[in-house]
Amino acid sequence: MKSIVALAGGVGGARMSDGLAEVLPPGKLTVIVNTGDDFEHLGLNICPDLDTVCYTLAGLANSQLGWGREGDTWEALSTIGKLGGPSWFRLGDRDIGWHLERSRRLRRGQPLSRIMRDFCDIFEIASSVIPMSDDPLPTWVDTDQGELAFQEYFVKRQCHPRVKGFRFEGVERAKPAPGVLESIHTSEFVVICPSNPWVSIDPILSIPGVRQAVREKVVIAVSPIIGGKTVKGPAAKMYAELGIQPSALAVAHHYDDILTGFVIDREDENQASAVSDLGIEPYVCNTWMKTRRDRQELAKQLIEFGSKLVIQ
Amino acid sequence: MKSIVALAGGVGGARMSDGLAEVLPPGKLTVIVNTGDDFEHLGLNICPDLDTVCYTLAGLANSQLGWGREGDTWEALSTIGKLGGPSWFRLGDRDIGWHLERSRRLRRGQPLSRIMRDFCDIFEIASSVIPMSDDPLPTWVDTDQGELAFQEYFVKRQCHPRVKGFRFEGVERAKPAPGVLESIHTSEFVVICPSNPWVSIDPILSIPGVRQAVREKVVIAVSPIIGGKTVKGPAAKMYAELGIQPSALAVAHHYDDILTGFVIDREDENQASAVSDLGIEPYVCNTWMKTRRDRQELAKQLIEFGSKLVIQ
Repeated sequence: MKSIVALAGGVGGARMSDGLAEVLPPGKLTVIVNTGDDFEHLGLNICPDLDTVCYTLAGLANSQLGWGREGDTWEALSTIGKLGGPSWFRLGDRDIGWHLERSRRLRRGQPLSRIMRDFCDIFEIASSVIPMSDDPLPTWVDTDQGELAFQEYFVKRQCHPRVKGFRFEGVERAKPAPGVLESIHTSEFVVICPSNPWVSIDPILSIPGVRQAVREKVVIAVSPIIGGKTVKGPAAKMYAELGIQPSALAVAHHYDDILTGFVIDREDENQASAVSDLGIEPYVCNTWMKTRRDRQELAKQLIEFGSKLVIQ
Repeated sequence: MKSIVALAGGVGGARMSDGLAEVLPPGKLTVIVNTGDDFEHLGLNICPDLDTVCYTLAGLANSQLGWGREGDTWEALSTIGKLGGPSWFRLGDRDIGWHLERSRRLRRGQPLSRIMRDFCDIFEIASSVIPMSDDPLPTWVDTDQGELAFQEYFVKRQCHPRVKGFRFEGVERAKPAPGVLESIHTSEFVVICPSNPWVSIDPILSIPGVRQAVREKVVIAVSPIIGGKTVKGPAAKMYAELGIQPSALAVAHHYDDILTGFVIDREDENQASAVSDLGIEPYVCNTWMKTRRDRQELAKQLIEFGSKLVIQ
């Protein structure tokens, strides 16, 4: 069996990837992860989406918070807070160790993709986890309060500013990381995880060569919007602020040049025929991943649906 | 009463400073601390002597280890170790928080002396703790295995290489930190703590202007060598490798151009007359600071001795 490629952002991407990894034979999943929200903080190179995916696949993620490690401690951060330093971005002690070592290797000139491959090996993650690019590609959010760096918008201002657009700085010259195009080319099909289309998936698809490679494949997306809302994160809010009614159908429109199939929640069953009208095969099931069982159940149906589309 | 100035390295300097701080009225002690063994590790600016002095004066030092904080945890370092990163330099989680915030402020261009003043205020340290300089002044150790950066020699190679000399890189152009010369000028007298003469005190005295300022004052040193050995650290080994019999007297010789008085341990009482022959007033007492009471007892005698020399 060929591998399956998943394009992923943070929590939704991590949960979907985890479900797929559990259901597929070991090593048959490649996750290509957004790095547009990577940033430097306290001198540390932080890759929120990559880390959420890795921690989740390693079974170490903090499932309540949606970021960081389960059972992590907060000694370093509380010292920083006491000293009057910035403690708005919550970093646990084990998480800081992970960041310190990655930052050390990056400063030595090692590519991010190689470092993450080593980290995944050490943490016994059977799937391949690849950053979308080894080049820094920061996402900027244009808002009514000016253009903001992503984490400034996302964490510090808690997505309050009204969004007007997005910019992926340096994307014209960016190269996909080693393995990105190869894994897409040789894949059975591509899954777009229920991640934020604007700031998690679009950055991946904007890297020269990626959209084209994806377009040659059967591609199925899982809607991150259920009943007009997102499970987590600002995707629905962003659609509304950009003048688009947030819905599963809006997501199908968003990806309509590349999608073969589109998975929507039972709650949005009434949008299936409109999806179909776009020339995209709809698939209706429960998409809300509350438990690990939900992830695996969704992954099973996804694989079945994707395999059916490949044969067609 | 005027203030007393102490020149200090790590553990011996920290213990002596702590004794003085306990015995003197609050705010009447200024500690000028060696920064020659400061280094960058994991992207963190680490100041071992400054931190040992601050942690000790704040009552937070790990008394067993001689570095780091009592009761600190090791989550970040164990993660770094698991990832195959460098864990030879032991950093606790709270210690890492302290380093992250200091490094962040240094990168923003703030002088080390200002940062440490703020840290001391926050940790309610009544004494002034001043780094010898805001300029980086790395100590290099010339050895039979080549010239080594200080921490490479001290921690990684555990002082095994034979010492041939020392170099304080950039010292010709270095400026004393704000407050260094002023506090010496206005002090009652200067105490040279029982720290390593070669790599803790010489770097301070080598900064243009410092030796001259010290020389105008009554200066008393406490011998770091007792019975031909050091309580901690490689000072005795260094004297021997440089062809000098390690002894309290050798330390008196080392400082003979600046000393007014010299405090030696009862064990070295027989060297008192030779110290006297150098034109330096000897003082014999117990100098081994095993307990906090020992520190305070030594500090009391030091203040009495110094005050007597000032009146003479």
